Amino acid sequence: MLVNGKQWRSIWIDEVSGDPTIIDQTLLPHRFETLPLSDAAAAAEAIRAMRVRGAPLIGATAAHGMALALLRDATDEAVASAARTLMATRPTAINLHWAIDRVGRRVGSLAVAERAAAARAEAISICDEDVAVCESIGEAGLSILRDLSNQKSSGPLNVLTHCNAGWLATVDWGTALAPIYKAHAEGLPIHVWVDETRPRNQGASLTAWELREQGVPHTVIVDSAGGHLMQTGDVDVVLVGSDRTTAAGDVCNKIGTYLKALAAKDNGVPFYVCLPCSSIDWTISDGLSDVPIEERSGEEIRVLDGRSKDGEVVSVALFDAATPAFNPAFDITPAALVSGLITEYGVFSTDAASLSRLERRTGGALPADDAPGDQRGFE
Amino acid sequence: MLVNGKQWRSIWIDEVSGDPTIIDQTLLPHRFETLPLSDAAAAAEAIRAMRVRGAPLIGATAAHGMALALLRDATDEAVASAARTLMATRPTAINLHWAIDRVGRRVGSLAVAERAAAARAEAISICDEDVAVCESIGEAGLSILRDLSNQKSSGPLNVLTHCNAGWLATVDWGTALAPIYKAHAEGLPIHVWVDETRPRNQGASLTAWELREQGVPHTVIVDSAGGHLMQTGDVDVVLVGSDRTTAAGDVCNKIGTYLKALAAKDNGVPFYVCLPCSSIDWTISDGLSDVPIEERSGEEIRVLDGRSKDGEVVSVALFDAATPAFNPAFDITPAALVSGLITEYGVFSTDAASLSRLERRTGGALPADDAPGDQRGFE
Repeated sequence: MLVNGKQWRSIWIDEVSGDPTIIDQTLLPHRFETLPLSDAAAAAEAIRAMRVRGAPLIGATAAHGMALALLRDATDEAVASAARTLMATRPTAINLHWAIDRVGRRVGSLAVAERAAAARAEAISICDEDVAVCESIGEAGLSILRDLSNQKSSGPLNVLTHCNAGWLATVDWGTALAPIYKAHAEGLPIHVWVDETRPRNQGASLTAWELREQGVPHTVIVDSAGGHLMQTGDVDVVLVGSDRTTAAGDVCNKIGTYLKALAAKDNGVPFYVCLPCSSIDWTISDGLSDVPIEERSGEEIRVLDGRSKDGEVVSVALFDAATPAFNPAFDITPAALVSGLITEYGVFSTDAASLSRLERRTGGALPADDAPGDQRGFE
Repeated sequence: MLVNGKQWRSIWIDEVSGDPTIIDQTLLPHRFETLPLSDAAAAAEAIRAMRVRGAPLIGATAAHGMALALLRDATDEAVASAARTLMATRPTAINLHWAIDRVGRRVGSLAVAERAAAARAEAISICDEDVAVCESIGEAGLSILRDLSNQKSSGPLNVLTHCNAGWLATVDWGTALAPIYKAHAEGLPIHVWVDETRPRNQGASLTAWELREQGVPHTVIVDSAGGHLMQTGDVDVVLVGSDRTTAAGDVCNKIGTYLKALAAKDNGVPFYVCLPCSSIDWTISDGLSDVPIEERSGEEIRVLDGRSKDGEVVSVALFDAATPAFNPAFDITPAALVSGLITEYGVFSTDAASLSRLERRTGGALPADDAPGDQRGFE
């Protein structure tokens, strides 16, 4: 999508160095800087320090990390070791595992000498496929936004989103923001309420920045404000991403998503989750008991970066270091609160029959008589 | 309550200057500084700039503001003008109106020469009564905490609170924190989850500071985390304050309270609102349509104060000034989500019969056969 009017992806191969290269998202919105990943350790550090974040981009970066590791040593042991290191960077995002496994499987049967090039090609494929998947999510979500917009007698369609599930969280387009970008591109009047998303402020720092660069009207709110805005009728639909979705449709996403889903239910506001099917974990069902919730350092709550009056980016402490802080990074939104899953295969509700159809669709085991017609329609 | 091991109130008459004096709460937790209010304009500024905040303390400060105004000019016109100025400082807190009216009524029938002294005495009475009221709220809430604690087989009682409804929000004791202070004092094992409460961070800045000074175990969390903690069984009860409660039991409190109430309902966690009856607006019923919600500047979201590495308190911007931000300060928690109102007259549920009893109790029109027995029990 656009930065200063030019097209970017969130990860790409630098044409001169040949290194996979990222935008250091910890510096946004204050500074826009790119960072080459010269080895697997750099890729792991970028994921762990959240220079890249968002389930799809974590997967894409880990795939490139595998390829970088294999450039140096492509023996079975080295492949397994690189996979372990990268796997340990973030515990919650399921397609971190998916991407690492995919590269591992791709090279497993090859001669050692052929593995590095194959891994790199696979990482590039993962990135390109992610772009296509996100664009499909955008198209599927667009039809919902169009319908909701048609039901409004006046004013723009007000979408609330939490955290950043935009192009910075994927390779391009985004998941929750993809339908918004599509809607804006076709001239649908749209406005986005952006949850700031404490403690790391991905909403205020990344989503607002993305939307501004793309020219989409938006307003930042604190994470506590969304319920009030739904009560006053100022939210038409909620669109969020997902780090891991269970086979039963429970959604693990950025901490606070659950509260917005409760408020949406209480106020009759549709609540959609936008996700690539690679982020569905078909091996688990109950989100509350089966998804490990990453606990990050309390320092992320206590200390934050901002721009001082003289333009410097400085870290400031909000309270004393002796005050304990607890920082779970994700929560679980039960399937019953989810109006639908917007995927690259169309929109699916979270009842057992729909999810079963989606599983067969993603597994490629779809019987001929069960093939969806219009994949953008609601399943 | 305690600061550095010594007893303080949040507003008091300085023995040397005779000025009503406050703690400048905008400087906490980084600096503890007191501020004399030498005239009504200083009192109004302190309320408007949130150097004092919390419905009861706003009322107490406004009462002293009236007394200060009358020191200078106690004619009918001056009384009315001071009331108007002070009334306009914050639109939502009902007992701002209540306190100003009370001082106005007290002096209305007096000779001009007698008014200043009477107003000052009335302001002091309002403060002293507030302390007694809050202590009664603490006693009423204590019996609930004791019962909940008895039901636990192990571990401390985990209370979640939002914003600051501690002694800094009142004259002493607090509302939501009063039962916690009482429980801690009698040795009940207790731990408090403190919502940081963006955008002004009253939880992390004031509640955590209060609890630390008093020695009560606590942990700061982001506003988005409470739902997750309720899902995992780590919250036994929610205690919050109220800026205005309607005759139907709808509660207007700091933005985000509604989301915590929804999560409490969804997880079977009791949700209590602690309030002095002076903050009940018996003239209105429907919180959503009848309570004006203060909209504060978006700059409160964009810019915040923290302590830099060299110990200076500095303001930093979290995002660009060109990015719009919307900042409603309160929301409405419908009565159906409230387990009970903890008041100076005991605990009342939010059904019509209980609220009617509470109204008669506060109006002094309670029939003899309807007098509550143990006022600390659940009505």
